[in-house]
Formats: sequence, C-alpha cells, structure tokens
Amino acid sequence: MLHIIKAGGNIADNDELLNGFLQSFSAFPGPKILVHGGGKHATRLAERLGYPQTMVEGRRITDAHTLQVAVMSYAGWANKRIVAGLQAAGCNALGLSGADANVLRAVRRPVVSTDYGFVGDVSPANVRTDFLKMLLNAAITPVMCAITHDGEGQLLNTNADTVAAVIAIAMSRVYPTRLLLCFEKKGVLRDIHDDSSIIPAIRASEWAHLKDAGVIHSGMIPKIENAFQALIQGVEAVRILHANDLAAAGSGVAAGTLLY
Amino acid sequence: MLHIIKAGGNIADNDELLNGFLQSFSAFPGPKILVHGGGKHATRLAERLGYPQTMVEGRRITDAHTLQVAVMSYAGWANKRIVAGLQAAGCNALGLSGADANVLRAVRRPVVSTDYGFVGDVSPANVRTDFLKMLLNAAITPVMCAITHDGEGQLLNTNADTVAAVIAIAMSRVYPTRLLLCFEKKGVLRDIHDDSSIIPAIRASEWAHLKDAGVIHSGMIPKIENAFQALIQGVEAVRILHANDLAAAGSGVAAGTLLY
Repeated sequence: MLHIIKAGGNIADNDELLNGFLQSFSAFPGPKILVHGGGKHATRLAERLGYPQTMVEGRRITDAHTLQVAVMSYAGWANKRIVAGLQAAGCNALGLSGADANVLRAVRRPVVSTDYGFVGDVSPANVRTDFLKMLLNAAITPVMCAITHDGEGQLLNTNADTVAAVIAIAMSRVYPTRLLLCFEKKGVLRDIHDDSSIIPAIRASEWAHLKDAGVIHSGMIPKIENAFQALIQGVEAVRILHANDLAAAGSGVAAGTLLY
Repeated sequence: MLHIIKAGGNIADNDELLNGFLQSFSAFPGPKILVHGGGKHATRLAERLGYPQTMVEGRRITDAHTLQVAVMSYAGWANKRIVAGLQAAGCNALGLSGADANVLRAVRRPVVSTDYGFVGDVSPANVRTDFLKMLLNAAITPVMCAITHDGEGQLLNTNADTVAAVIAIAMSRVYPTRLLLCFEKKGVLRDIHDDSSIIPAIRASEWAHLKDAGVIHSGMIPKIENAFQALIQGVEAVRILHANDLAAAGSGVAAGTLLY
C-alpha cells in the first residue's frame, strides 16, 4: 500500500508542529510520498520585499514576483528544511518540484475571464510514475512541493491539495494507493467551532446532501471535492486528519474523517 | 567518460548567458552532472531584506538569516530555474541539494579563530555515488546547488567550486571523470586585463612556480588549488573555461586552460 501524505502549509509555519509531523511521517510504515504546502512564509516574504498581493475572488494572482517568492519559499526553504529534517529522522527523503526529472508537468491556466498569472493546472497523465517508482524501489521518499513547470522553461505555481490528489490518482495505477490530507483540524467537523464534532466517515453518495445542507465549512469544500475526484479515479481511500494524528493513523487507528 | 560541469554564479545572473549555457550543457555528450553557484541574487535578496552581510578576511559569515537567503536563492530560485530551463532544452535534469537523498553530507566548520556560521565542509567519502549512479543510469542529469546538510537536520552553505571538486573526486572511483569549471573568463590568464593571454595548459609541477611568480590572479588561486586536489585524488583532467566555450569543449575543441 502506497500512502500519499499531504501536509498543510501551516505545519511548516510552526517548528514544533513540523518536527512532530516529520517524526510521525518518518515512522509511517510502507512506501510514501510527502506533498507539502508553503504556509505563511511566502506571504510574509512577499510583504517584506514590498510585492503587493493581488486577489481576485479569493484567489491569489501569481505575477512574476509572486512566482519567484513561491519558488524560493516552497521549493527552496520549506522543501529543503523538510528534507533535512526527514534525513535527521532516518527517512531518506528527496525533494522535488514538478520540473525535477519532469515529475509533474503542468499547463499554464488559460485566461478566460481572469488571468491568474503563472498558475499551473495538472493532470494525472503528466505524472512520471516510472520515476517515482524508481525512487520508491530504492527506498527513497519523494517530498514534493507544489511548484510545477510547463516543459518549456516556465515554472508555475499549483495548489498543493491538487498536486497531492493528482499524484495519488496517477500512482493508483501502479500501486494500491491511499491519500492522507493532514491539516490543523481533527477532521471534517459538523461544527467548525467544536473539535469533537468530527464526522468519522463520508460516503460519496452522502456528499451532495451534506454540501447542500450547508453543514460543511466553505474552505473545506474544494478539499473534499478534490478528495472525491481522487476516489472516483482510482485512489482506495482518502482520510482528512490533524497532522498530530498521523502517528495514530500509521499504527492503524481510524483518525479524522474517512472519505470512501 | 563522466563530466562534472561547474557553472560560476555569475552565469545565473544573466538570462542570455544562462540560456546559452543551458543549451550547451544540454547538448554536451555523455553522462554529466551540473554544479552551480548562486550569483548575486542571494546578495541582492539579503540587501532587500535588510540582512547585514558580515565579512571576515574576505569570507562571508553565514548567520541564520544568510543561510535562509542562500537556501531560498541557490536551492530554490537558481536551481529550479536551471532545471526547468534544461527540461525545455531536452535534458532530463533533477535538482539536488546535499540533503536530497543525503547525496552530500557535510560537517559544520569547527570554530578555530573565526566562527563562519552555517558553513559546511565536505569530503568525497560523504558523496552518495550509488544514488548519482542510479540517476545517470536512468538518463537523469543531476543539477547540484552548493547547499549541504549535516545529517542532523541542519542545512549548511558550501563553496560551489569545492562541491564540484568533491563530487568529481568521489565519482572518479565509479567512472573515468573530468571536471570543467565554467566562468566568465576565457581561461587562466597571464594578464587578467588581456583575454588573449590564456595559458593553454598547466602541469601540476609548474603550478608552484606560477603561483610564486605572482602570475596568477589572487581570486584564481583557490580555484586552481581545488582543481589540483581533484587531479591528485583521481579526476583525469580539469579544464577552466568560459561558459560560452562549453559547446566547443563538448565537440572536442581544447578551450580554456587544461590542468593535468
């Protein structure tokens, strides 16, 4: 069983949370791939450099400066800190952007009404599963940031949840694959203010109802829809859980919310 | 024949020079490994962020801020731009810091009279030649920046010429290996102001004399001494040449200065 484990960006913002997560990840049994976000480091760096952040309908526009900051922060600082931390924890990690060994080629998002800038859309067909398999066979653990490229020399910024889902879908054709989405909540909550209101499992057939009933917090919706896409396209199971519960999940405890 | 090709930092500072170099590197025949410096990007970034640069006897002290800037700039922006550019040129490049797959473990420089900060000293014994060989056998071209790690979670900053020499020495035990040092001059010059004064070849036995006679420009001395160390320890030949002459060297022209 291969696990694709996504670490939410905020994990990299907190040294203590990050170290605990890297220990749990290192101890997690079997072959695994880490996909990480970048956290607030990139936003703070852009602010300090005086690069204005443009948002359209809640989405950030990736102009040339924002891209450079994202590459420095995600592919540089976050990725290498995580890789060095995993090496110290006994996990033979290898950091990757999508450009490295062409592991994830993207297409720059076409301009329809909004130009999102240097944003890359990805699909499972453009994942180099042979390369990832070679690494896993050599007991090397890929650590992917969400920087991609277009194959023509342009680096692109991609959503980390999407990268995790697309990698999981592609790898599900090679290995039985599960996707674990780690973030700062205990799972999908019925009441966002009540950490004990975890929904233990959501079937695909229940999802439309839960969404229509307005039970699920708005920021959670794209994460869950991404997850159901992964399930439809071959991933065995998706679990949404707190980063601190990764160790429990690794030892077989049913932490967080199972999507199936 | 394996070639370890070092690109001087200034190559990354100039888009036109960089693109030409990446084309020549991509076309260079046979297995190869690129080692790159960072150029002025890191210095400019540190200035913009208001991080003071401390120099002791002409050497930069790598404090925590300087290290973060170096990681972002060398392992992030420079490395990923080069990798994406090589992918576009048809070369299946893979970016690496020393932490990635533990390919180059370093030791933090001990404090004798000066504390250089987060600076890593490296030796050929700590190069994972098996991993590099696996990549080369898979027709993947390693692209190394000069960020290393200590195996205990600490990233370190290392001199890129030293990284190139150490990788060349280690790989010379696996492949016949040559080292090409590309920079912004036509070779080792008798007169630094006269580009036509290239010394075509320097034997190890001539070097002490040339150095004592004060013929060689001071900044060149550590580069040449590094190169002779590589020769003594198993590298077949070292050539110092202009980045623009890499294409000529790849087609068998004796460009620059040969050390042997």
